Amino acid sequence: MTIPAPLTGVVPPVCTPLTPSREVDVPSLLRLVDHLVRSGVHGLFVLGTSSEAAYLTDAQRRLVVETVTGHVGGQLPVLAGAIDLTTPRVLDHVASVAAAGADAVVVISPFYTSTHPAEIARHYRLVAAASPVPVLAYDLPGAVHTKLPAELVLSLAAEGVLAGLKDSSGDLGAFREVVVGARTRGDINGFSVLTGSELLVDAALAAGADGAVPGLANVDPEGYVRLDRLCRVGDWERARVEQERLCALFGMVKAGDPARMGASSAALGAFKAALYLRGVIECPVTAEPQVPLSEREIEGVGKFLSGAGLL
Amino acid sequence: MTIPAPLTGVVPPVCTPLTPSREVDVPSLLRLVDHLVRSGVHGLFVLGTSSEAAYLTDAQRRLVVETVTGHVGGQLPVLAGAIDLTTPRVLDHVASVAAAGADAVVVISPFYTSTHPAEIARHYRLVAAASPVPVLAYDLPGAVHTKLPAELVLSLAAEGVLAGLKDSSGDLGAFREVVVGARTRGDINGFSVLTGSELLVDAALAAGADGAVPGLANVDPEGYVRLDRLCRVGDWERARVEQERLCALFGMVKAGDPARMGASSAALGAFKAALYLRGVIECPVTAEPQVPLSEREIEGVGKFLSGAGLL
Amino acid sequence: MTIPAPLTGVVPPVCTPLTPSREVDVPSLLRLVDHLVRSGVHGLFVLGTSSEAAYLTDAQRRLVVETVTGHVGGQLPVLAGAIDLTTPRVLDHVASVAAAGADAVVVISPFYTSTHPAEIARHYRLVAAASPVPVLAYDLPGAVHTKLPAELVLSLAAEGVLAGLKDSSGDLGAFREVVVGARTRGDINGFSVLTGSELLVDAALAAGADGAVPGLANVDPEGYVRLDRLCRVGDWERARVEQERLCALFGMVKAGDPARMGASSAALGAFKAALYLRGVIECPVTAEPQVPLSEREIEGVGKFLSGAGLL
Amino acid sequence: MTIPAPLTGVVPPVCTPLTPSREVDVPSLLRLVDHLVRSGVHGLFVLGTSSEAAYLTDAQRRLVVETVTGHVGGQLPVLAGAIDLTTPRVLDHVASVAAAGADAVVVISPFYTSTHPAEIARHYRLVAAASPVPVLAYDLPGAVHTKLPAELVLSLAAEGVLAGLKDSSGDLGAFREVVVGARTRGDINGFSVLTGSELLVDAALAAGADGAVPGLANVDPEGYVRLDRLCRVGDWERARVEQERLCALFGMVKAGDPARMGASSAALGAFKAALYLRGVIECPVTAEPQVPLSEREIEGVGKFLSGAGLL
Repeated sequence: MTIPAPLTGVVPPVCTPLTPSREVDVPSLLRLVDHLVRSGVHGLFVLGTSSEAAYLTDAQRRLVVETVTGHVGGQLPVLAGAIDLTTPRVLDHVASVAAAGADAVVVISPFYTSTHPAEIARHYRLVAAASPVPVLAYDLPGAVHTKLPAELVLSLAAEGVLAGLKDSSGDLGAFREVVVGARTRGDINGFSVLTGSELLVDAALAAGADGAVPGLANVDPEGYVRLDRLCRVGDWERARVEQERLCALFGMVKAGDPARMGASSAALGAFKAALYLRGVIECPVTAEPQVPLSEREIEGVGKFLSGAGLL
Repeated sequence: MTIPAPLTGVVPPVCTPLTPSREVDVPSLLRLVDHLVRSGVHGLFVLGTSSEAAYLTDAQRRLVVETVTGHVGGQLPVLAGAIDLTTPRVLDHVASVAAAGADAVVVISPFYTSTHPAEIARHYRLVAAASPVPVLAYDLPGAVHTKLPAELVLSLAAEGVLAGLKDSSGDLGAFREVVVGARTRGDINGFSVLTGSELLVDAALAAGADGAVPGLANVDPEGYVRLDRLCRVGDWERARVEQERLCALFGMVKAGDPARMGASSAALGAFKAALYLRGVIECPVTAEPQVPLSEREIEGVGKFLSGAGLL
Repeated sequence: MTIPAPLTGVVPPVCTPLTPSREVDVPSLLRLVDHLVRSGVHGLFVLGTSSEAAYLTDAQRRLVVETVTGHVGGQLPVLAGAIDLTTPRVLDHVASVAAAGADAVVVISPFYTSTHPAEIARHYRLVAAASPVPVLAYDLPGAVHTKLPAELVLSLAAEGVLAGLKDSSGDLGAFREVVVGARTRGDINGFSVLTGSELLVDAALAAGADGAVPGLANVDPEGYVRLDRLCRVGDWERARVEQERLCALFGMVKAGDPARMGASSAALGAFKAALYLRGVIECPVTAEPQVPLSEREIEGVGKFLSGAGLL
Repeated sequence: MTIPAPLTGVVPPVCTPLTPSREVDVPSLLRLVDHLVRSGVHGLFVLGTSSEAAYLTDAQRRLVVETVTGHVGGQLPVLAGAIDLTTPRVLDHVASVAAAGADAVVVISPFYTSTHPAEIARHYRLVAAASPVPVLAYDLPGAVHTKLPAELVLSLAAEGVLAGLKDSSGDLGAFREVVVGARTRGDINGFSVLTGSELLVDAALAAGADGAVPGLANVDPEGYVRLDRLCRVGDWERARVEQERLCALFGMVKAGDPARMGASSAALGAFKAALYLRGVIECPVTAEPQVPLSEREIEGVGKFLSGAGLL
């Protein structure tokens, strides 16, 4: 299907359930997709950071996209990440996910190498030229150690290179510059500005964002759909209350002991533990080399679910 | 072949020549390998950072390893990089390069995700358990944004997980801790401690390093072989003079304009321009999205070659 | 005077006008204070980052505080920064600014040294124990290279160590955690949560912040007072429009050429150029070693003023 | 006295002993100076990072310089740090330490603010123009978050702005560029290139450095004087052995628990604990807000002293 321009609403970055031996757990993945679609989300984003794309082999990535696109069958747009180091490698992923039925690709800046803004622009131009589907930029400086400059995003939008932005930078000031630029510049049309934040969806939508891609929407898609709706009707006070409930729920990402594991292990482990406790997926295991949550830490995640009325 | 334990001497990280359309230029690669082997280097390292491994597709990576191992036919050890984000993806590369004939793999810490030292240890243990060939750790904090702690390297060495270290951190103090630990701890044997620095080979060897993996050795392998020999016989004064000549030559990495390109483009572009000017490779092109050196910048590289007596 | 608990509204970080020979320009400083007070701001913050406190000698700092407190004479609260590296040095500044009449001090985390969260807590406890006036924490990771953790701020608030937070981190998610914590925890009362952002005042107030400390309020205090008022009455749509006007005006911080100067020179130079062009201060000079804006760059600042209807 | 050009040999950055109430402990400071001078060091550096200058008030800094210059009375050169954020504040310190008898000042790049290389150059030019004594640059990117570029150091040396460099960057490659440049450029004379490393004195001297400023020389000045002598006579093998003994001794900086304190607390706490255990200073206390070593951690330091034959 053609993705809407702009794409609006809640587009969860779909977790990738794994079996105890770290294979993709297809039945759990299908249950998770149903759980999301039933809650009224507006699109799905597979192979993002919350999907553990960084940990999936090429074969697993392909299986995930095929499974999800096959299952939703055009009911709602499916975006797919193409996370790799540089242009030639990203192009292989773009070809693969497009062949597997993705409606758009989400592409990160080059990383690992020392990259100049001119090279980032070159990267997106080359990717867009070769991609059979629209390209969204993925701004995740915590992972790639460069921030996509707002002006660069806007000029690539005006050129027709980029169809949208998923901003996971945490920098709402710079995000706002893109939102306002996309609306007020005469040369940009239908550009999708999406926040990747769990904590600032109300603020991002109030500032004019089109939608949100919060990892926590795996756990509580109804909450984010409700929040999105409250924002769209301008009921900012109730939106704030809903957002604060979700902020409290997000506290689960600190259930894992930071002395024992990194922030990725803790956050992705918590999301999967919550999906497991809610009965959506079979097994809370995360990919290697992430440190698994202990039973006690999983119980800690459960307390966040109870606190948010989800257990 | 079995790699020596420890591996000593000069082990250039072999550049990957490309055609104007960015395919691997196999004849140029073979000429480059001959140029290195003839100069007396002690091993070859393919698919490292200087090889533009970050930019090569899986198919190109495989072609490079097969080409080089097939050509040298066991005359000298061939190490191959397995650069990717996390354990499952690295394991695919390890299997691929080992099948293509690599004698050892060089493996970087997980990156892109937020990684805890416990996860780095877990990563190396899993990779080593599955690898058919010895595993060397690759310390490149400039790329992966974490530094491999010396104590971790030493304990993984003692466990038999790691067969060596390629240190491109620039931190000779921490490197020295590994060198001395590897020599004095009773539980470590045959561990290879290799510096990735172009500028400190004399200092690293004086401190007790086993060898060097300098990118600039593509351009002047004779120089590094001579330097290695002077260090081994303890002629530190002449070693220093040779090292300083090579330091001056290394100035070529600044020939590219930093206002126009990143440090990777400039350094890899300079090495390839130098190999082109010396008649070793057909075409100085680098992989996308790197910015190419201008003709004038390539002339600038030529001046460094002349200054070092290489043109 | 006793500062309100919480302190609400717009509290500009007052620029420090200098003469061409880099002495404090007292008449211009008084005019600037009058310009701010007349616009209805709710407090003044002297010796902050926008005040060039990092560049002022101890004698100049003292002169600034005495001049401002003497002039406003208790009409509105005057907060003063105590920016220095560590506890003993900060304590000297606290004593000095309190003696000069400041109603509260704003204190940054220790910097220059490698600081542990336990040391940050120790720092604030020692400073608060010795300070004759309330202490607000100043979170500016761009300057001190550590982020104040939200939980630490909240527990120091509960202990009575901190009276408030000025957050210039740009991280609205973490800011929100403090806002919500300060409101919902039973053990915190009258704690002032202030954003230092120019671009997100509407979002911060919507999330529940008490007030704002935007450097750009030197240039357009009426705008920020209007924005604050619109937020307080819940007119979020007009607030957004006003905020966007101010975001556009803030573009002036990029008038200085980044190839020629750092971000501090450009931003502080732009604020002072704007105050000069608006006739508030005599001379746009900034302290050494900042690079001054060129005449052409100052004209560029003027265009932002015209665009915002201020010239 | 006029400092030698270049200044050679071992120049310890003198610790600042404190009383339990955190006043400068003058008798202990005098004993420490005697301990160093007796060991044959070639100069003294007060108010450096190892001196806890970042923690000393202006009055304490003045007392330290006067005490030391008054005591050594021109027997050997006394350098003093002028550590503060920007030019105007540094100039106050330069005037103060020069008046107190320092023979040279050691000046760090501006920090806290976002600084451009042009502003760093401007800073050093202004400081040198106003300083009554020679100015050495202090490269400590770990503290100020910018690295002094080698070319900038060399061109300021050629201009006569800088009389020397104290390099505590840990980057021996860049250091070497300064060493070689200072020797080979025709326009630089008598420039002092000093390493601040504890671990690489042999390597730095082999590369051509003039001297060393190792914090650990407080604890074992005889060791560093011996090492310096072995390097000067070209006995590199015995130099390496001595250096390795000192590297092992330096392990004391990890005696403090990193879960409980920052790296500054641990390193400075260990040096002072060692001086206390060796009977040189009265009390091992460090300045606030540093976390003190526990008794058990102090015993841990003692084991390093025993291991190095110093107890």
